[in-house]
Amino acid sequence: MRRVLAARLSTHDGETVHLAGWVHRRRLLKSVAFLILRDATGLAQVVVTDPNTRSALEEFGEESVVSVTGRALANPTAPGGVEVVDPEISLLSEPAEPPPFDLYRPSLTASLPMLLDHAAVALRHPRLRVAHEVAAAAVAGFRAALDAQGFVEVHTPKIVASATESGANVFAIDYFGRSAYLAQSPQFYKQMMVGVFERVYEVGPVFRAEPHDTARHLAQYTSLDAELGFIDDHRDVMAVLRDAVAGMVSSVAARSSVAVPEVPDEIPALHFTDALSMLDAPADEPDLSPDYERRLGEWARREHGSDFLFVTGYPMVKRPFYTHPSPDRPGFSNSFDLLFRGQELVTGGQRLHRYSDYVAALGDADLGQFAGYLDAFRYGMPPHGGFAIGLERFVARLVGAANVREVTLFPRDLNRLTP
Amino acid sequence: MRRVLAARLSTHDGETVHLAGWVHRRRLLKSVAFLILRDATGLAQVVVTDPNTRSALEEFGEESVVSVTGRALANPTAPGGVEVVDPEISLLSEPAEPPPFDLYRPSLTASLPMLLDHAAVALRHPRLRVAHEVAAAAVAGFRAALDAQGFVEVHTPKIVASATESGANVFAIDYFGRSAYLAQSPQFYKQMMVGVFERVYEVGPVFRAEPHDTARHLAQYTSLDAELGFIDDHRDVMAVLRDAVAGMVSSVAARSSVAVPEVPDEIPALHFTDALSMLDAPADEPDLSPDYERRLGEWARREHGSDFLFVTGYPMVKRPFYTHPSPDRPGFSNSFDLLFRGQELVTGGQRLHRYSDYVAALGDADLGQFAGYLDAFRYGMPPHGGFAIGLERFVARLVGAANVREVTLFPRDLNRLTP
Repeated sequence: MRRVLAARLSTHDGETVHLAGWVHRRRLLKSVAFLILRDATGLAQVVVTDPNTRSALEEFGEESVVSVTGRALANPTAPGGVEVVDPEISLLSEPAEPPPFDLYRPSLTASLPMLLDHAAVALRHPRLRVAHEVAAAAVAGFRAALDAQGFVEVHTPKIVASATESGANVFAIDYFGRSAYLAQSPQFYKQMMVGVFERVYEVGPVFRAEPHDTARHLAQYTSLDAELGFIDDHRDVMAVLRDAVAGMVSSVAARSSVAVPEVPDEIPALHFTDALSMLDAPADEPDLSPDYERRLGEWARREHGSDFLFVTGYPMVKRPFYTHPSPDRPGFSNSFDLLFRGQELVTGGQRLHRYSDYVAALGDADLGQFAGYLDAFRYGMPPHGGFAIGLERFVARLVGAANVREVTLFPRDLNRLTP
Repeated sequence: MRRVLAARLSTHDGETVHLAGWVHRRRLLKSVAFLILRDATGLAQVVVTDPNTRSALEEFGEESVVSVTGRALANPTAPGGVEVVDPEISLLSEPAEPPPFDLYRPSLTASLPMLLDHAAVALRHPRLRVAHEVAAAAVAGFRAALDAQGFVEVHTPKIVASATESGANVFAIDYFGRSAYLAQSPQFYKQMMVGVFERVYEVGPVFRAEPHDTARHLAQYTSLDAELGFIDDHRDVMAVLRDAVAGMVSSVAARSSVAVPEVPDEIPALHFTDALSMLDAPADEPDLSPDYERRLGEWARREHGSDFLFVTGYPMVKRPFYTHPSPDRPGFSNSFDLLFRGQELVTGGQRLHRYSDYVAALGDADLGQFAGYLDAFRYGMPPHGGFAIGLERFVARLVGAANVREVTLFPRDLNRLTP
């Protein structure tokens, strides 16, 4: 008999049905026992009156995996309005050991380290699980938005000979007896691929040997990277980013019950220097502090009714070497950050595209070690730019998680390497 | 003026158009010069008669990036039947240096190491580039097939505390002063996630410190992994794999001009022991040699008209510890390989799901170091199984590449760590 998923049980009223899933909870009352069965789609209530079935159920602890065959019967008090009566219940595995915390409670009360230590079972809780459904939906929306605009997906090396952005915070690898590093970003590769496909994206892991133990930093996270050629300047990149974020948000709305923000057709934008003067900040500040970002977020909400705000033109001094300078504001760049509710969500900008600019920006040693990257520019590259979205941070903001570890499958950090 | 892509030029006959791209080739004849412009979509012919424009063009070597504005005019001998006349041509960057090989020739004649050393420019050649369009299409088809069957995409750690499958061929990392390794597969994590989502897939990099320098092995490749719960046995996994491969193949057919094989509704399957006896091989062979696989491929083609063949029930001794044994053939397993044209393309099978089976299969040391993984089984897991497809091998077979490096963006191997 074909398996009926919990969420579809209500369409089988009156039929004999076969369900399978985890023993989410048992309630053993005097004259009747209830089995709440959990599967990937939700919960189903199974009513046990037969004494033999009841004694079997007493043996199957919470989280045991069982198969249930019985009759679907309407009952307005059951989840979905239909329950299963007169069941036969059999184990599909061994009886489970009692889990380290009660998964059937509305919230898990265990500490975050305890939950992360037992992630294989903690993630079964709907509150923890939803973040990963949101992540999957967001990534699908990102891809769909960029596919529709002619982007090609690529998969680039995660083992590299030299650090991408700077020498700091890289993980060293023993690569057949030579030194190598885990890639901090696919930056160089996505730029090189603009020379091939004009528009590319990659969804993949990036690695930062982040020595700070904070609520925002991970040693591995999933980066949603895009890069596109034949732009006029960074504003063309911002337009694509707006569409990517809108695609992510609408996919999350379609595939989950999480409340999502509205993405304006045109996200308000503010030049870095205008942001500083609006904040009454010193004009020589090189970057925006978290507090500045928070106040800018409030301003965008108040003045533009927007949860999103672009800040453009950051000082060159705070941006990586491949950043394109502003052609008309010396010292400033064609770069941007996208703030979401007053926190930086995405960084991007226009990149240098002339070989001679790279030669001027890099020292002799870097010119040698980056030769394969610089080939792209030496042999002709269009004006281009791109951005990178940290998936876990995006999801954390959407679901309101205080710590990015709550929305990361098996996080890696300074202190955590398992499970 | 909005940019017209080369492939769309034929729809603009008679209009003033703006194109942009790379100088693919110049032909400087006595009375006229031709510029063949290349963009992401193809080639366009630009006809230059004005002497000033001609002298400018003489300065722009092949691969220089230019902008062209002119009049589209029907000419049956031009690519797409329309060329651009009376052009203004301007540089979008600096004139490019002469590339290390001629990208405008029908085939690149440089050696593979030379092409790989200059991948940023070699990949611009249509023959090399097509493999990556096929890869992107295949991955999109994989995801679409599994999304349609209720799978959830996950992103799992690539830095792990212990080797996944065995202690061999792992890359060691310095992880904040501790020992760690690059993940050889997401095997443990996708199994753990069956306990959460029932059906999951991941597209991501895997790492093998492969000490052999062969045409098939890479230190990093892209693995398409799937795992599903509540199966009867490995045949349920094979049915999903069939649909995933069919999805990949039909997506490649829809998005590229590469000839694709037909995927039968039901792929023929042969038990390992039946394969051996058909091959007149000794009954105690523990595995299939490449020559056996080749002959089985010919048999499938001849007897079933199929490029694909499942071989099932491999001996337990050749399969990893988490492999589920056959319930009725001692010593054999509920596993399979999918052969494509006589070569192994995919490996998969049913996994152990009872905690006690893992305890029996693993030594005490492994029970300790795999505690986080074993949590999944300790606290209830359904019968499940899955498979992994190596993307680069799949693409190499489809496009007929002899060496997997020809279809890998920036390959990593024993000798190669750049670009």
